[in-house]
Amino acid sequence: MIRIGIMGYGNLGRGVEAAIAHNPDMQLAAVFTRRSPEDLKISTQGVPVYNCSDAKAHKDEIDVLILCGGSATDLPKQTPEYIQYFNVVDSFDTHANIPEHFDAVNAGGIASGKLGLISCGWDPGMFSLNRVYASSVLPDCTTYTFWGKGVSQGHSDAIRRIEGVKDARQYTVPVSEALDRVRSGENPQLSTRQKHTRECFVVAQEGADKARIEKEIVTMPNYFADYDTTVHFISEQELKEKHSGIPHGGFVISGGKTGLSGEYNNVIEYSLKLDSNPAFTSSVLIAYARAVYRMSKDGKKGCITVLDVPPAYISPLSPEQLRKSML
Amino acid sequence: MIRIGIMGYGNLGRGVEAAIAHNPDMQLAAVFTRRSPEDLKISTQGVPVYNCSDAKAHKDEIDVLILCGGSATDLPKQTPEYIQYFNVVDSFDTHANIPEHFDAVNAGGIASGKLGLISCGWDPGMFSLNRVYASSVLPDCTTYTFWGKGVSQGHSDAIRRIEGVKDARQYTVPVSEALDRVRSGENPQLSTRQKHTRECFVVAQEGADKARIEKEIVTMPNYFADYDTTVHFISEQELKEKHSGIPHGGFVISGGKTGLSGEYNNVIEYSLKLDSNPAFTSSVLIAYARAVYRMSKDGKKGCITVLDVPPAYISPLSPEQLRKSML
Repeated sequence: MIRIGIMGYGNLGRGVEAAIAHNPDMQLAAVFTRRSPEDLKISTQGVPVYNCSDAKAHKDEIDVLILCGGSATDLPKQTPEYIQYFNVVDSFDTHANIPEHFDAVNAGGIASGKLGLISCGWDPGMFSLNRVYASSVLPDCTTYTFWGKGVSQGHSDAIRRIEGVKDARQYTVPVSEALDRVRSGENPQLSTRQKHTRECFVVAQEGADKARIEKEIVTMPNYFADYDTTVHFISEQELKEKHSGIPHGGFVISGGKTGLSGEYNNVIEYSLKLDSNPAFTSSVLIAYARAVYRMSKDGKKGCITVLDVPPAYISPLSPEQLRKSML
Repeated sequence: MIRIGIMGYGNLGRGVEAAIAHNPDMQLAAVFTRRSPEDLKISTQGVPVYNCSDAKAHKDEIDVLILCGGSATDLPKQTPEYIQYFNVVDSFDTHANIPEHFDAVNAGGIASGKLGLISCGWDPGMFSLNRVYASSVLPDCTTYTFWGKGVSQGHSDAIRRIEGVKDARQYTVPVSEALDRVRSGENPQLSTRQKHTRECFVVAQEGADKARIEKEIVTMPNYFADYDTTVHFISEQELKEKHSGIPHGGFVISGGKTGLSGEYNNVIEYSLKLDSNPAFTSSVLIAYARAVYRMSKDGKKGCITVLDVPPAYISPLSPEQLRKSML
């Protein structure tokens, strides 16, 4: 049994707990929280909850610690800190800061002899794998990543910060015409606006100026200004009934040539359709926790990513079973 | 530069030669043939052609030898033989015999200190990877593999062996209704007949009994009897004009649940649309030749498959570049 610790019991932490239940070789050993442990009720019976400040004392009870905090402020501190005592997996997803985060975690792991796998999930994660596989097999290919249809928490939060907004939910939607052009092997040049639209469902406070709210949304730099954005004002009740899920997904599509003079076209497509973004992300984290456990046992230390893991290491099946049933 | 040798200069061997031209870190070092070397014209200028019986003498000129023979009779002999002298990659695709082939190649590699990667290409190969990734991330998932639309050489050959048939081309076609059901997350039970149809284009010899030929095709055990098969009789000219390509492709689709009580559905789909089956297969072989070269330098020997290779090893980019640009 691989003994898993969860650091942080939000959407992702609860997802990891659920994912462990789907993996018979895994066992939840402890949950760590910033809150008072007595105040936290978890779903799994008989598993201790500790304050995160006590984590170090439990290092011998845990094979892999899954860090379920956010990329903005939690993980840049937590992952280098906890790799002093634990093998760790995180879902750090600030793409631009990955090299810096990698170096910090790597230095910590080299010093402690522990192994950390960062930036795990589906993007970065499964989508990264597909970008690397496609571009390695078809060196001249163009790879496109589309997200959605799905809820963007960052964009929903940005709307909620506007004066007069009570609640909001933002969906990122890939443009189907763009998808079709990419799938045709045409390798088009696509602007930000041509790839995705943004659809916003907004609950306004009573008496708020909806026209001003809508204008503030659609002109917001970085978040909305470069997209075709539609805004729907709905009731709090409707938001709760129709938009309380956290679905997501997307597409990685690569078009490239083969043949002596590039005479053959090829299209490689990978897609995800997920009812719950955090539940799926957690499932990826747990599969890679298995790999971290095994690679650490092999003597590997420092920092790795999904790109460094042989696929067989994430499977509960043995190499013999995999060759027989999956190859 | 990674020095590549090609053993066997058929469709696949020519594909490998073309794939090398798309990879600046690769160089074609020699082609080996069963024919008289003088009779073989290859596309790359200045590269020697040798008889396969002389291969051993050139072992120090080649980093990885790609074995481009067939799975029925060539590879079961060639791969264990040539791993005595070379790092090798093959595309052995008789699924049921993979464990036996693996053991033979592994024993050879352990003895010689060389590394062999077997069953490379897209199925087995890229499709195997996707079966393993999906079933590891979603342990309860059901995975479906569909092939086509594409030319099956084995089925085309089977038709050509019927009396009165001059030439033939057979397409395997996935049933779109079945694809839609799988994509919906329904996880249906599908019979062989429900998954694929078979479409045959046949050139009959003059005066041949077309009704008898058609009946022999559609009732042929294993090849056609379990499928809905349509037969079109066409002219030799039309076969040449419209059916001389070797396109192929297919889909690996997995549906599985996440959440504490399996309340969330997830669909993972991977698909390939290839103008030329051998040209794409060769591109995969060459990407994995890069991995074999690197893993052999790391001291790895014996036999591996795509499931044992960290994705970063098949990319021409450095780990730093990959983390920065692909993760």
